Amino acid sequence: MTERYTLHEDPRSGNCYKIKLTAALLDIPLETLQYDIMQGETRTPEFLANINRNGRIPVLQIEGDDGVRFLPESNAACWYLASGSELIPSDRFAQADMLRWMFFEQYNHEPNIATLRFWLSIIGEANLTEQQRGQIMAKRVAGCEALRLMDEHLGRSEWMAGDRATLADIALFPYTHVAEEGGFGLEDYPQVCRWIEQVRKLPGFVAMA
Amino acid sequence: MTERYTLHEDPRSGNCYKIKLTAALLDIPLETLQYDIMQGETRTPEFLANINRNGRIPVLQIEGDDGVRFLPESNAACWYLASGSELIPSDRFAQADMLRWMFFEQYNHEPNIATLRFWLSIIGEANLTEQQRGQIMAKRVAGCEALRLMDEHLGRSEWMAGDRATLADIALFPYTHVAEEGGFGLEDYPQVCRWIEQVRKLPGFVAMA
Repeated sequence: MTERYTLHEDPRSGNCYKIKLTAALLDIPLETLQYDIMQGETRTPEFLANINRNGRIPVLQIEGDDGVRFLPESNAACWYLASGSELIPSDRFAQADMLRWMFFEQYNHEPNIATLRFWLSIIGEANLTEQQRGQIMAKRVAGCEALRLMDEHLGRSEWMAGDRATLADIALFPYTHVAEEGGFGLEDYPQVCRWIEQVRKLPGFVAMA
Repeated sequence: MTERYTLHEDPRSGNCYKIKLTAALLDIPLETLQYDIMQGETRTPEFLANINRNGRIPVLQIEGDDGVRFLPESNAACWYLASGSELIPSDRFAQADMLRWMFFEQYNHEPNIATLRFWLSIIGEANLTEQQRGQIMAKRVAGCEALRLMDEHLGRSEWMAGDRATLADIALFPYTHVAEEGGFGLEDYPQVCRWIEQVRKLPGFVAMA
């Protein structure tokens, strides 16, 4: 069965980049449709009705023999594309451990590191609400803690899960390698810096827009 | 290979309950070790060194022929236990769609619905910091939005993913069914109420502590 994939994305989003990186590493053709989240383009009635009721990108559109389906959530879309490939370990523990780091990414890493990048480099500090401003310090502390955990782990292990590159690396790479746009100093995390260069050398690697 | 499972848990945590519910539905023996997160028992040097450097429960301890391993992140632990069972669909799209709702749970649902329950019913409103108090309204709105999305979805589908109970239902059940402890009125979400009763009737179901 041949499927055709279209990514509904905002090119500035690291969550969207994860899916493009997965497709590139696996040499899977992927078309893209751009939205500007700053202009509310993912909150229009059409987007909510047809693409994702959650009003968020990325969404992976999958066209196959049985019609068109939509898959939101970046890490689930990566899982779908990488299903059956070497990016998902077949060993039972390594597979669950890979998912462990992907859930860590969405719970401990993204809401702090990606959000500060979004607030400081995309919205701009001057345009933040009082409530957002009040959360900067807590997100800074939690983001540093997430980077510290990664750094410790990468001091004991070449890759995030198992003994080769997996979706755990792909999920964590996008917002980590641009963490400085959120004010995080990567020089404090030497193992993370080593790992970033290692990911960049993967065959088929593509850079973020 | 026979493995022995021990859950490091706080019985008040819905994230821990997910794993106990998975084990119960699959009739897998699971021992438990209790910690009181309010007393900092998951932040001791011993816990950080031996169980989870992230200082969080749940952690699934797996003892097998090749030693003892630790798996943090509730949804990853559920995945490990349910691996190869009917709680994980074998269909490629249904499996990714199940993960989609599990990532939704950790990103859109838990940080709002579980956090308000923790703040209001466990810490107590009078003991919140100014910063926590300032986030209540935003978490209330986002939590209602997560419940609305579930309700809409359950209006079109009997279960969260695929055509039977999966880990997506197990991941979303714990904090949804006690959402009223965080001040959410479930009467506004009739399909969610129908689904809660449906989960309760699954063979092997166990209630939260």
